[in-house]
Amino acid sequence: MKWPSHGSNPQYLYQELGLSLPLDYIDFSANINPLGPPQVLKEKWADFYNEINDYPDPYGVRLKQLIAKKENVHEDTILLGNGGAELITLIGRLLYGKDVLIVSPTFSEYEKACRVNKCTVHYHLLQEPNWGLSVSDLNLEKMNAVFLCHPNNPTGVQYSYSTILAVLEKCEQNGAYLVIDEAFYDFLEDYIPLTPLLQRYPNLILLRSMTKMYSIPGIRLGYVLANWTVIKKLAGYQPHWSVNSLAMMVGEECLREESFTLHTQTYISQERKVLFSFFEKAGFEYSPSRVNFYLVRDSSLTDQLPLFYFLLKKGIVPRHTFNFPNLEGRWLRFAVKSKEENARLMEVLSEWRQQN
Amino acid sequence: MKWPSHGSNPQYLYQELGLSLPLDYIDFSANINPLGPPQVLKEKWADFYNEINDYPDPYGVRLKQLIAKKENVHEDTILLGNGGAELITLIGRLLYGKDVLIVSPTFSEYEKACRVNKCTVHYHLLQEPNWGLSVSDLNLEKMNAVFLCHPNNPTGVQYSYSTILAVLEKCEQNGAYLVIDEAFYDFLEDYIPLTPLLQRYPNLILLRSMTKMYSIPGIRLGYVLANWTVIKKLAGYQPHWSVNSLAMMVGEECLREESFTLHTQTYISQERKVLFSFFEKAGFEYSPSRVNFYLVRDSSLTDQLPLFYFLLKKGIVPRHTFNFPNLEGRWLRFAVKSKEENARLMEVLSEWRQQN
Repeated sequence: MKWPSHGSNPQYLYQELGLSLPLDYIDFSANINPLGPPQVLKEKWADFYNEINDYPDPYGVRLKQLIAKKENVHEDTILLGNGGAELITLIGRLLYGKDVLIVSPTFSEYEKACRVNKCTVHYHLLQEPNWGLSVSDLNLEKMNAVFLCHPNNPTGVQYSYSTILAVLEKCEQNGAYLVIDEAFYDFLEDYIPLTPLLQRYPNLILLRSMTKMYSIPGIRLGYVLANWTVIKKLAGYQPHWSVNSLAMMVGEECLREESFTLHTQTYISQERKVLFSFFEKAGFEYSPSRVNFYLVRDSSLTDQLPLFYFLLKKGIVPRHTFNFPNLEGRWLRFAVKSKEENARLMEVLSEWRQQN
Repeated sequence: MKWPSHGSNPQYLYQELGLSLPLDYIDFSANINPLGPPQVLKEKWADFYNEINDYPDPYGVRLKQLIAKKENVHEDTILLGNGGAELITLIGRLLYGKDVLIVSPTFSEYEKACRVNKCTVHYHLLQEPNWGLSVSDLNLEKMNAVFLCHPNNPTGVQYSYSTILAVLEKCEQNGAYLVIDEAFYDFLEDYIPLTPLLQRYPNLILLRSMTKMYSIPGIRLGYVLANWTVIKKLAGYQPHWSVNSLAMMVGEECLREESFTLHTQTYISQERKVLFSFFEKAGFEYSPSRVNFYLVRDSSLTDQLPLFYFLLKKGIVPRHTFNFPNLEGRWLRFAVKSKEENARLMEVLSEWRQQN
């Protein structure tokens, strides 16, 4: 069985499993904000048309100015990218042939980008059911870089600021980069910004995605914040005009939408509580997520495949976890969606519970 | 002086030269079709909005099917890319550490992609004023790959089919890839497709851009046609979801616009004749271009800088040639633009001629 390596595009999952895609299905496999995109994008969409027939600004000056202002960093410490995935590829290229430690289970692209660049990949395995991070257990001997997703995908777990600072300190002492993928940081209600640490720690690389919060995965947009020497190296590996003109216009509008982000955080938090309360009552295990996705399992099953098939046939599309090291299918991942969609999920899980 | 490495975005050129950007200017520096984008894109633009909030199909199945049908090739021999520039970067990565020959003067991205991947770069220098390609003069000893832009950017020169076939044969005998960048092939009125050669020559890599003919450089879209083993390697270096959803929708619509391409070819050919006839009369040298751009020089000047400044101040933005090996500023490149814009160029060049 060749499991699709990512969420979204459920047609490939159904195809691989030999199932027909239901006419009505709900895709819980992609971790994007159910409240997005921000309304302003639809309002300005017609104007954006004029952007397609000129080359993008290769330096993305206007967008970088907005990010610099919002994050209180210098423009030279920002690299825009064609989605987080491109930036991960560039970081992999930067680490060509090195030893890297990946805190797992986590997003599969770090490993892919490192392997294609002949890195030796090591794992630090987080332990269920809490997947907490213990700094003293991190073995950094010989490591040139550590990949840490925070909050972590697929668990949704948040680490304390002091933990992250201790990891960063330990990386610096060992001469290792710390790459923190903050793709979902803006879903946290109590996030403490790491950007002020960039000046003190030239080994810190922060990765941001704009596609999750603003529901614009089709348009591809992300950025890296790091020391300017790192930015310069990464930029050297990047194709010219890598960020398309639409992405830049859309990004500029999104960054102005502060109340949208706050409203999203409150909404996601409320819905997560409703869902977790249901899981408690209905006897499902779940990960202590603080963001817009979470892991779930029926603990009476060692392998979640029967539940997975049951859901797929009912038109509920979770994300399998077969290609997450240290999960290997023992959990299913779901995004927090609209109230109606979450209600439908709980309804179908109740049906499953009655039958099993 | 740090010359901008590409056309378009003239603000950077004016800034570098310490000139203020005129309110009204005509950008002749980007080689895009003045008749585009095709009308259908504006008509469908509102529908495309729905594409932004779902992940792109990472395999681009629908667009690849259309390309496969149009080009009469198998889908496995196609790789979609985030513009030609990304695909050149991937080809550079494929050639990591190898010896490459670049037929120059030509597009600067080949060299950049090769150097960042530690290739040893060699040049085969084409000779002005005709910039023709002589197969017997090509020295392929030790070469692992040859980059050939056809029709060539910046000269616009077309080589004969038999010449290209001979180069391909010679590359095969020497165990070298032949990368042919066909970014402007669809502006030629008498193009003979090279796609039937792909089956016979596994060393052939064809690079196509969709941004020039369809005037969609803001959206980023191109593709490679090559043996499936090459495609598989290139795909391994590519970030996931590299081609955005808009690019795929736009690409699908553009490929259906056959009369648009034919109409463009006729228009460009007619305008080029008008321009070249003017250059003859006004005493300017020009390259024997067969496409939508050409080189021009005032042969009474050894260095074209005075003419370049004169034009910029008049709001005519040519492409400088300082970073084209073997041209080094001795020519200026112009795109064929609308009738009115071309007329304005001729008017300003007449003014120059009267004064010099």
